[in-house]
Amino acid sequence: MVVDVVLKPEISDPQGQAVLGALGRLGHTRVTGVRQGKHFVLDVEGTPSREELEQIAETLLANPVIEDVELHLPEA
Amino acid sequence: MVVDVVLKPEISDPQGQAVLGALGRLGHTRVTGVRQGKHFVLDVEGTPSREELEQIAETLLANPVIEDVELHLPEA
Repeated sequence: MVVDVVLKPEISDPQGQAVLGALGRLGHTRVTGVRQGKHFVLDVEGTPSREELEQIAETLLANPVIEDVELHLPEA
Repeated sequence: MVVDVVLKPEISDPQGQAVLGALGRLGHTRVTGVRQGKHFVLDVEGTPSREELEQIAETLLANPVIEDVELHLPEA
């Protein structure tokens, strides 16, 4: 399972801002925005319920107050 | 454009190991491996060449000595 965690749009992202600034200084001016998040690759045994995987992602890998979660579940 | 950066398989990943340990203590024993990486979402204006996007990803967002890059380019 792959889980991507990104800061909610209304939360400021200093890491992404720093990357954007560096890209501009290096001449990559076509990049107009950068958001930096976390990427988790989980090896999961057997066939856990979608519910369990969602719970892992939303309560353990991300902080739902400030972060959004994108789940990429393996094909059933 | 979305860029996922993950440590190469032969590089140890203490963050991922810590998450794996926490999941085990919380009873999620079906998860047998966790790798933690970085997830970048870039807003790009116009239609830059695939070459430029690859260069940004591989030389500026990742450290190619220890990290692998996965590019998700927008549809042409």
